[in-house]
Amino acid sequence: MKLVRPTLLLDEVKCKKNIRHFAEKARKAQVKLRPHFKTHQSHMVGQWFRNEGISCCTVSSVQMAAYFAADGWDDITVAFPLNYLEVEEINRLAKVCKLTLCIVSVDALKKLTEKLTQSVNCQIEVDTGYHRTGVDARNFPLIDEIISFISNHPLLTFSGFLTHAGQSYATRSLTEILKVHTDSVALMKIAGDRYRSKFPKLELSIGDTPTCSVATDFSGIDEMRPGNFVFYDLMQRVSGVCTSEQIAIAMACPVVAIYPERNEVVVHGGGVHFSKDFLKMEDGTICFGELVKLTSLGWEQPVRPVYVKSLSQEHGILAVPDPEIQEIKIGDVLGILPVHACLTADAMGEYFTLTSTGSV
Amino acid sequence: MKLVRPTLLLDEVKCKKNIRHFAEKARKAQVKLRPHFKTHQSHMVGQWFRNEGISCCTVSSVQMAAYFAADGWDDITVAFPLNYLEVEEINRLAKVCKLTLCIVSVDALKKLTEKLTQSVNCQIEVDTGYHRTGVDARNFPLIDEIISFISNHPLLTFSGFLTHAGQSYATRSLTEILKVHTDSVALMKIAGDRYRSKFPKLELSIGDTPTCSVATDFSGIDEMRPGNFVFYDLMQRVSGVCTSEQIAIAMACPVVAIYPERNEVVVHGGGVHFSKDFLKMEDGTICFGELVKLTSLGWEQPVRPVYVKSLSQEHGILAVPDPEIQEIKIGDVLGILPVHACLTADAMGEYFTLTSTGSV
Repeated sequence: MKLVRPTLLLDEVKCKKNIRHFAEKARKAQVKLRPHFKTHQSHMVGQWFRNEGISCCTVSSVQMAAYFAADGWDDITVAFPLNYLEVEEINRLAKVCKLTLCIVSVDALKKLTEKLTQSVNCQIEVDTGYHRTGVDARNFPLIDEIISFISNHPLLTFSGFLTHAGQSYATRSLTEILKVHTDSVALMKIAGDRYRSKFPKLELSIGDTPTCSVATDFSGIDEMRPGNFVFYDLMQRVSGVCTSEQIAIAMACPVVAIYPERNEVVVHGGGVHFSKDFLKMEDGTICFGELVKLTSLGWEQPVRPVYVKSLSQEHGILAVPDPEIQEIKIGDVLGILPVHACLTADAMGEYFTLTSTGSV
Repeated sequence: MKLVRPTLLLDEVKCKKNIRHFAEKARKAQVKLRPHFKTHQSHMVGQWFRNEGISCCTVSSVQMAAYFAADGWDDITVAFPLNYLEVEEINRLAKVCKLTLCIVSVDALKKLTEKLTQSVNCQIEVDTGYHRTGVDARNFPLIDEIISFISNHPLLTFSGFLTHAGQSYATRSLTEILKVHTDSVALMKIAGDRYRSKFPKLELSIGDTPTCSVATDFSGIDEMRPGNFVFYDLMQRVSGVCTSEQIAIAMACPVVAIYPERNEVVVHGGGVHFSKDFLKMEDGTICFGELVKLTSLGWEQPVRPVYVKSLSQEHGILAVPDPEIQEIKIGDVLGILPVHACLTADAMGEYFTLTSTGSV
């Protein structure tokens, strides 16, 4: 395949290894793996999960649920607070698959049921410290109220609790990540224990890649929903969650200008390709991506790190020291590891695998 | 039209007014308007420019040039440093339209001409202070070398100089913007004067929305290439370049959760919809978007500003004070003005006008 413009490369071997590793980890821990497909949004990558025996998935929107239902996924959790305005699409989907909705309020449920025609599962999202969405995990009066509404409606089934301990993404050490895991699981268990006698089938589901990657003890937990691990990225590597070798996607970007006098190399590859999440590295450097050397087999780490220092709509500017900058020529195609794989994959919309010439 | 999920609304009246205003401004200043279409990337919006007598455009990639050439645009400047790897697409395009390439080095031109089969115009990008790309405007030996290469090749025509004074985006006052304009135009004129005797038809082209919006004196300049003005956005408003009333796009985002205890409202609308550019407001607040009230006619400014304080992949979190938060209900659809219209429009990929039910 000839790379002539910004192209998202997918290392199939690394990606399948990440999938297999998590499938095995979940099997060993006797936890159901319900991978979050918002990271890859690809039928083909979904198939790679099927090949490892995974038969259910998580998505972040009703539209994304429809995309995967169209490929035969029939057990889907929409891990985003119920948007009852989409009730028509929800009815269509719930006809063809086991659909689990994420509930954070009674109001949305009341509105939903005015037009709901199909049975759906309701999982209550509890907030275990991230404070983005969800019912406070200790707010039992509110949880009681929601469960009571669900129990009294013939089309709704209470299926348990889910949480997203997203505070784990802001950590910079494995110790911090493990603490997030322990605290968050403890709160989930309290909620589970409180309602299990009445709802013996209720499930507890946890969700972020950092804790699911790092933790080994999942006792008391029924399900995990990590997503990012399928590709990993610089954000995960900086937190110690993965190694560079596990990062399964890289952008290929042609060099269009070189400015040795200010140690800058300009590539075609900007905010519309990478999206604009960035990292502050330990030395204070701002990083929008990290250089790798593309080879016939994929990519290799350089001897010392080189970062993308800024992005505009189509331009990426790399800070390249001497003597490395002397080795780069106009028209070279550089590999760049993304800061946040989910957003880069969404922005690009397609992948090219190293072994094929087509997109997935 | 029923708004049930994140939707990008386009106020046709405001947008057409922005286009007309600039078309008139350019006519009065006797400067050719070659609008940058990277902001809207839409055939329909392009047609609105045609209706105002505009017959040439600027794009930021060869792919985007192909998109507009397919709609009949036959005079296109690719204002991004030449990527010679795309020579095949360049040959195809240059067959059907007058194509102007942006040149920052001899190396790229040499490589291009190895496979070039069609005539193309070459405009040298000069750096007038932004230091992103371009030849230093005072580096005459390098400019001489590039012009000499162009002049000696039968398929290349030297057509002048272009600059993008992008440092204007980092300003916060009209005085600063005007200074950028004056300094940058002065450097352009020196370059123009130096080569005009030999190339009497050479054109000087300037490009950023802030200076083109604010300046009134364009004497000595032949062409302007602003793009963002077609929609404007919060970044431009904060710099004093536009008013809220001129911002022509807003995201419509359904409310999915409300947390009065921390004055937060969560909408469906995240980084994959807005992209992730943000502003630091004067009081230090981080802003990823600003609330407006959607009405049957478009949107209205609230009494006091309310900002999107953070974005994750699909979630937007608004910081809503009392008593405003009491007026918001789950299922309300909120309007949000984007920080950076170009990236939001690119992320969404389609618009819904206020007067139609279709996308453009």
